[in-house]
Amino acid sequence: MTPEEFRVAGHELIDWIADYRAGVASRPVRSEVTPGWVADALRGAPPEMPEPFHDVMRDLREVVVPGVTQTQSPGYFAWFPSNASLESVLGDMAASGLGALGITWQSAPALTEMEQVVTDWLRELCGLSDVWHGAIHDTASTACLVALLAARERATALSEDRGGLQAEPAPLTVYASTQAHSSVSKGVLLAGFGRDNLRLVPVDPVTYAIDIDALRRMLADDAAVGRRPAAVIASLGTTGTTAFDDVTAIVEAALPYDAWVHVDAAMAGSAMLLPEHRDLFAGVEGADSFGWNPHKWMGTILDCSLLYVRDVELLIRVFSTNPSYLRAASDGEVTQYKDWGIPLGRRFRAMKLWFHLRLAGADAIRQRLRRDLANAQWLAGAADAEADWEVCAPVALQTVCLRHHPAGMINRAALDAHQQAWAERVNASGRAFVTPAQVEGHWLVRVSIGAEATQLDDVVHLWDLCRESARAVSP
Amino acid sequence: MTPEEFRVAGHELIDWIADYRAGVASRPVRSEVTPGWVADALRGAPPEMPEPFHDVMRDLREVVVPGVTQTQSPGYFAWFPSNASLESVLGDMAASGLGALGITWQSAPALTEMEQVVTDWLRELCGLSDVWHGAIHDTASTACLVALLAARERATALSEDRGGLQAEPAPLTVYASTQAHSSVSKGVLLAGFGRDNLRLVPVDPVTYAIDIDALRRMLADDAAVGRRPAAVIASLGTTGTTAFDDVTAIVEAALPYDAWVHVDAAMAGSAMLLPEHRDLFAGVEGADSFGWNPHKWMGTILDCSLLYVRDVELLIRVFSTNPSYLRAASDGEVTQYKDWGIPLGRRFRAMKLWFHLRLAGADAIRQRLRRDLANAQWLAGAADAEADWEVCAPVALQTVCLRHHPAGMINRAALDAHQQAWAERVNASGRAFVTPAQVEGHWLVRVSIGAEATQLDDVVHLWDLCRESARAVSP
Repeated sequence: MTPEEFRVAGHELIDWIADYRAGVASRPVRSEVTPGWVADALRGAPPEMPEPFHDVMRDLREVVVPGVTQTQSPGYFAWFPSNASLESVLGDMAASGLGALGITWQSAPALTEMEQVVTDWLRELCGLSDVWHGAIHDTASTACLVALLAARERATALSEDRGGLQAEPAPLTVYASTQAHSSVSKGVLLAGFGRDNLRLVPVDPVTYAIDIDALRRMLADDAAVGRRPAAVIASLGTTGTTAFDDVTAIVEAALPYDAWVHVDAAMAGSAMLLPEHRDLFAGVEGADSFGWNPHKWMGTILDCSLLYVRDVELLIRVFSTNPSYLRAASDGEVTQYKDWGIPLGRRFRAMKLWFHLRLAGADAIRQRLRRDLANAQWLAGAADAEADWEVCAPVALQTVCLRHHPAGMINRAALDAHQQAWAERVNASGRAFVTPAQVEGHWLVRVSIGAEATQLDDVVHLWDLCRESARAVSP
Repeated sequence: MTPEEFRVAGHELIDWIADYRAGVASRPVRSEVTPGWVADALRGAPPEMPEPFHDVMRDLREVVVPGVTQTQSPGYFAWFPSNASLESVLGDMAASGLGALGITWQSAPALTEMEQVVTDWLRELCGLSDVWHGAIHDTASTACLVALLAARERATALSEDRGGLQAEPAPLTVYASTQAHSSVSKGVLLAGFGRDNLRLVPVDPVTYAIDIDALRRMLADDAAVGRRPAAVIASLGTTGTTAFDDVTAIVEAALPYDAWVHVDAAMAGSAMLLPEHRDLFAGVEGADSFGWNPHKWMGTILDCSLLYVRDVELLIRVFSTNPSYLRAASDGEVTQYKDWGIPLGRRFRAMKLWFHLRLAGADAIRQRLRRDLANAQWLAGAADAEADWEVCAPVALQTVCLRHHPAGMINRAALDAHQQAWAERVNASGRAFVTPAQVEGHWLVRVSIGAEATQLDDVVHLWDLCRESARAVSP
């Protein structure tokens, strides 16, 4: 395709994106397609000859769009906000158009240095000190694995350079609350620690934050029998209820064992942009690594996950490679992000953050986050005011956890099924999408407010829909 | 930013990309900026208020573009082709505009099912049987780590579910040639095997392919003392010289130990699209996993790395998580790519492959690959015809490894320095960019042909430039 052919198709695509985004509110929020429908529509022999652009666009409109859940819809209250702000979309497009290759500094100095600039900007906007060094990873799962690998290697004085985890004398152990994200246990397994050496620490029954006394006891018990505590994961804003662990206390508890403290604030980290909510993040400066995702609530399009570490020297020792074909005269003076994580090659991910921050401005992003916090308080207040509704976790940020109690229903299993039933009714309506979740054994419904398009009116409509749906499925 | 504001900015951006691509040949191929220049130009306080779009575009033109090496230039012969075809750029843009969230099938059925369709298409285009199940990862480094983790868990009957690698009785060992990519040793270290348990197998001094007899001996010696061979990495198209290991023989050698065979064909895999070159890939069907990158020579924009595995059940057992908030009624019927690799969330990467294949067609892609192979043969022939030039490795595909021998220079250290000197002179000219590399202890210069824009004329000009440069730095 020539640049001129691209120009014609590109303009058509821009118009399509603008029209699609303008009309997203009118589509069913949860995709209504059945398993296999999309594949059946797209399958066929691999294309041998070029197809007209309008045929591809037709399938985009008629197959792909109905085949995705509309995370940019004002009625999207599921999982977590997955905002793809149009400012960041422009940045993502500029990166694609440029087609740069990020393997070493030399392959694209601007890719490396812009990543340094934007991760510094976000560090400052979050009120973090300059002991932190940031890089962009694809997701918090990867960032957590990177932190766990660094923790493993610190605890073993770089066992990877000897016999690996295989030659270590006593098992390394890792700690996280029962409410930690599934990527934590996944990372523990992938890093080779083993499930037997993962300690799931109980949480407070009201706040769902990690029980610090229980953590201290587990650490001491393990150390007493010769095990080696290597890492503690602190969750700031758990997936279930947006609970906040006490990082200050976790850092203190980990200190005697020199265990690495990783703070996972994947969703909630965006709130650190708000000085008035920074007390939720107290203690982070004492941790070893801190990760959060601008690609969630803040709205820089996926994939954009930040991982900050203090000891970047250690990180480089764990992740570096230096084959001859990647060496250059400037090596000593520059940052080589290939040595900060798993992949060698990287996209120009900094561009979407750079476009987003410059075109939107931090001030407007903060105002939007505050709007969402106010909307969550409104919903929690509305639910609190009704006798048959329970707000079943503290509303620290923008997630409201709800349970509906139909008159006379006290059986826990029946209540669990009822929550799933009314949530499914909401979701099947196509007007909104919420997520049922099991927290400490029982089901509730998470309303995660924070799609960029969601205004108070949309939350009011959702609340009406929740009540209608709960009534309709009540006995 | 509203959809209408996006429309205006988007059209301007499309024109900029078309103009940039049309003029890429006139820019210095290797970025000429000095360390820190880009960061100095971009730094400053984080943006508080929105900035005009044209200010961002100005910095894109004046700072970012000179700050990247022009991998899309016809004079780009460095590292490996890193083509970002404009067809795939359109697909990448469509994915950004859509802003879908890939965490489970339900979050974006089309994202999952299109990935199944396009990985199947490429499997068919490569002549692979349907025992293979593909997924798209960011890079071959990640794909190799995923394969090594699967290998580790198969060899230990899922030790991750018990004490991990820490509780295993005898060390697991991994084998790869001295010419394997740096991501192989990195993956071995990250997966916890330990450097002591990585066996770098010697290569044939002429073909640089793995020495099968040496591999067999190493496997037997390790097994004889109770070590457990867990994985063998076969390299198809090594980074240094594009050497091809004998996969059939490797699979046979690994069989008695039930060692996982992973085939790394990151760059060369594109050649599998050409039936007449498929003999280079003989034996792949017997391996356990096979990875290659459409984001290299084939030209689907980075990041687009394919990993095919045979035993997808095992892969899912190693990588799956199933928290309550990600469960849905359709779970049993659908593919959940979150359970096929490290990250939970994924971008709609299939879109760029889908656009690329449909808009370009496989036939045109094959013709371009054949053009590059012919150009490499032309260069090898031209160098062979000159007494002071050596083509110092077989030209299996599109990489030509050159050494220049000035009259009377026989000292190896002087020859090594000379290769680096003439390559640097080529690169400093701004007209072309090649890569010096150390192979089995000595330096050569890799000319990696295959940028989408590179025609025979460009290779002829490069050859003139190589000769001029080598003469200029000769004693």
